Amino acid sequence: VPGVAPEVVRVGLIGFGTVGSGVVRILRENRESIAQRLGFRLELARLADLDVERDRGVSLEGVALTREWREVALAPDVDVVLELVGGTHVAREIVLGALGAGKAVVTANKALLAEHGAELFAAARAQRTELAFEASVAGTIPVLRALREGLCGDRIEALCGIVNGTSNYVLSEMESAGEPYELCLKRAQALGYAEADPSFDVDGTDSAHKLALLLGLAFGAQLPVADIPRRGIEQVTPLDMEYARQLGLRIKLLAVGRVRPDGALEARVEPMLIPEASALAQVRGALNAVAVRGAFSGPTLYCGAGAGSLPTAAAVVSDVMDLARARVSGSCGRVPPLGWSRLSPMRLCDPAQLQGEFYLRFTARERPGALATVAGVLARCGISIAAVYQPERHGARSVPIVLVTHSTQESALRVAMAQTERLEELCARTQVLRIEREI
Amino acid sequence: VPGVAPEVVRVGLIGFGTVGSGVVRILRENRESIAQRLGFRLELARLADLDVERDRGVSLEGVALTREWREVALAPDVDVVLELVGGTHVAREIVLGALGAGKAVVTANKALLAEHGAELFAAARAQRTELAFEASVAGTIPVLRALREGLCGDRIEALCGIVNGTSNYVLSEMESAGEPYELCLKRAQALGYAEADPSFDVDGTDSAHKLALLLGLAFGAQLPVADIPRRGIEQVTPLDMEYARQLGLRIKLLAVGRVRPDGALEARVEPMLIPEASALAQVRGALNAVAVRGAFSGPTLYCGAGAGSLPTAAAVVSDVMDLARARVSGSCGRVPPLGWSRLSPMRLCDPAQLQGEFYLRFTARERPGALATVAGVLARCGISIAAVYQPERHGARSVPIVLVTHSTQESALRVAMAQTERLEELCARTQVLRIEREI
Repeated sequence: VPGVAPEVVRVGLIGFGTVGSGVVRILRENRESIAQRLGFRLELARLADLDVERDRGVSLEGVALTREWREVALAPDVDVVLELVGGTHVAREIVLGALGAGKAVVTANKALLAEHGAELFAAARAQRTELAFEASVAGTIPVLRALREGLCGDRIEALCGIVNGTSNYVLSEMESAGEPYELCLKRAQALGYAEADPSFDVDGTDSAHKLALLLGLAFGAQLPVADIPRRGIEQVTPLDMEYARQLGLRIKLLAVGRVRPDGALEARVEPMLIPEASALAQVRGALNAVAVRGAFSGPTLYCGAGAGSLPTAAAVVSDVMDLARARVSGSCGRVPPLGWSRLSPMRLCDPAQLQGEFYLRFTARERPGALATVAGVLARCGISIAAVYQPERHGARSVPIVLVTHSTQESALRVAMAQTERLEELCARTQVLRIEREI
Repeated sequence: VPGVAPEVVRVGLIGFGTVGSGVVRILRENRESIAQRLGFRLELARLADLDVERDRGVSLEGVALTREWREVALAPDVDVVLELVGGTHVAREIVLGALGAGKAVVTANKALLAEHGAELFAAARAQRTELAFEASVAGTIPVLRALREGLCGDRIEALCGIVNGTSNYVLSEMESAGEPYELCLKRAQALGYAEADPSFDVDGTDSAHKLALLLGLAFGAQLPVADIPRRGIEQVTPLDMEYARQLGLRIKLLAVGRVRPDGALEARVEPMLIPEASALAQVRGALNAVAVRGAFSGPTLYCGAGAGSLPTAAAVVSDVMDLARARVSGSCGRVPPLGWSRLSPMRLCDPAQLQGEFYLRFTARERPGALATVAGVLARCGISIAAVYQPERHGARSVPIVLVTHSTQESALRVAMAQTERLEELCARTQVLRIEREI
């Protein structure tokens, strides 16, 4: 009943893994401060996991345990359900089930939202309840709230994020140790910064999932995640790191969204070169950061832990408190899930038509004329060169030639790259990376 | 009526200065996106200022103008009132009047809140309405929302902010140009980064006002602003900047709040030396930034424009939208103004009992033995020295001696400073600055 505060709001947790056990710990340890902030108590009433036996080092006193998620998601004595199982199949059933039973639901599952968000948000609306997901993008950093509420009066022009901690950790290691991708990835796995199968993290898929959510929040854009062009960090080499440094640049896997002057949306995930003095270039290791540029607010930056049991769990608990408040005050749906009453499909611009500067690393055979030939191809394609860097390599059978272009149309660059592919002066695939001097 | 969305929520603006005209512009230019986000329209219905004649370059078509604030604050056709007049006397009357008439109120006035916050928040509660103030701290950066909601599940351990753009601009200028305080302040005034009377900005008062609000949001601490120890940037010299740089440190005016292990609160505003690699050291010019450390979320950082017409106005408009939503959904008071249902008075710890490292710049007469004498005094006070820096200065009548202490109790340092004051080897006041290696 709105206006009459209950003494307790009951929480049901499904998924007792890394984040789930962090949530249990925070609900216990911060019990007093949470109650003081809310004016009522949060109580963990039920917990479901396929394994409820293994000790996770947290007390489950007073919590009803089960292996069956329905006994949590549909339980009459549960008000807020946390979906922390991961994956998209069972997770979708859980969220739909809980919403259908009128529960408020919290998830940190970006893949689920990127693939089934429209269906899930519609189910929440139909039941006049809420689905919260702050922890799904940039972990503990409340950047979704910033976009949904803090900057909601502004018109966002662009955003640019480092939203995958695994990739950023691997790139940071490559940069500081000068070691190749494979070695740094193995180290990240050994330290728990990368999963056994790290594909989604390093190939840009995870970042694209998060970008799809950010685009909804920033631009009100409804965009199938499959439409977002993406490229991973697998082909970045320590050599590129070194040349980038000599150019005053750093290589980061960025998720970029930007509204073009014609109203079309530019969106992409790929490793890019950014100025070493920029704030995003300072974001090292497993940290995440999102830079936002508003028409009136100007640039703002949000930085913090993008993953990890406790940082992610802290964001989940804050979401639980938000939904508990909404329940108690009877204000579910006060702010629509993505900040907009209506999302609109936005036209994604053709990347080939976009302008940009590029870093090109050619690998040439050790004989005269390669630079002249390559430069000739670029010139005929109308691409002008801003900087050339060709280190001496006595005795090597191949030499790198690094060229930085002036701003050029991507379609022209593609033509030029196709032509250089056939040059017999070159002996390996050319590395092409976009340079972003401002977001 | 909750549940039935009105077509329009009406806004009354009092104070048509820099921020006020920015608000008018944003409400006009973002009219469509605001309506799309809210599901209803915001309309600027009334505006009061002592001067409603002068052209501010924004259209006031359809807005009722008046010189009398009561005709806005008390008008039956106004739902949300913006207090943007500045000062604390009339501003207090306006806010109390509007709240008394049941209006929701937005202000950006940190001095007002620091001095009269308790009274104003109580008035809002009594009327079951809301008083929003995101723009009062760190301008456009939604850091108050981050503390109130995004991090509310966590226990905040410490925060550290650059929350005065004027001071940060002056310090940045001193650092980059190597010029003295007075000159850089004049330049800031010429560029509009400092007011004609910049006292409150440069002497730490404005930062202390903002820190008082941050302490409420982060720790639930009710703390009279007069109790916060503060010191300004007036005594910082380019020489200190240069020595700091040689020590790998930078000088920033910081507002710091921290909960000690014994539960007491440490709070202060003063120029401090921080590692040049830290995120806050990168915050240059008129920018603001707040770093927060949560027990579970770890460190997060929020950065952006701390002042300026449009950035501040963007935060004000976002607040207006928040209050309009609360009106329409009938959820006023969903989150208490400072995030806590009850603020508690917290014990401020005695600065003399705190540990810390210090930067000491002595000014000695050009003759042998000064270093030995000074070092002897420190040793007898139990203060051990981590680093010494004594540049050669041939022909000068005085020489600087820079000492960096190991962690020491501030009370011991005070005793030592009192003793060195009497040394005839020294010929000027000693510069004492705290070193903060982590927040």
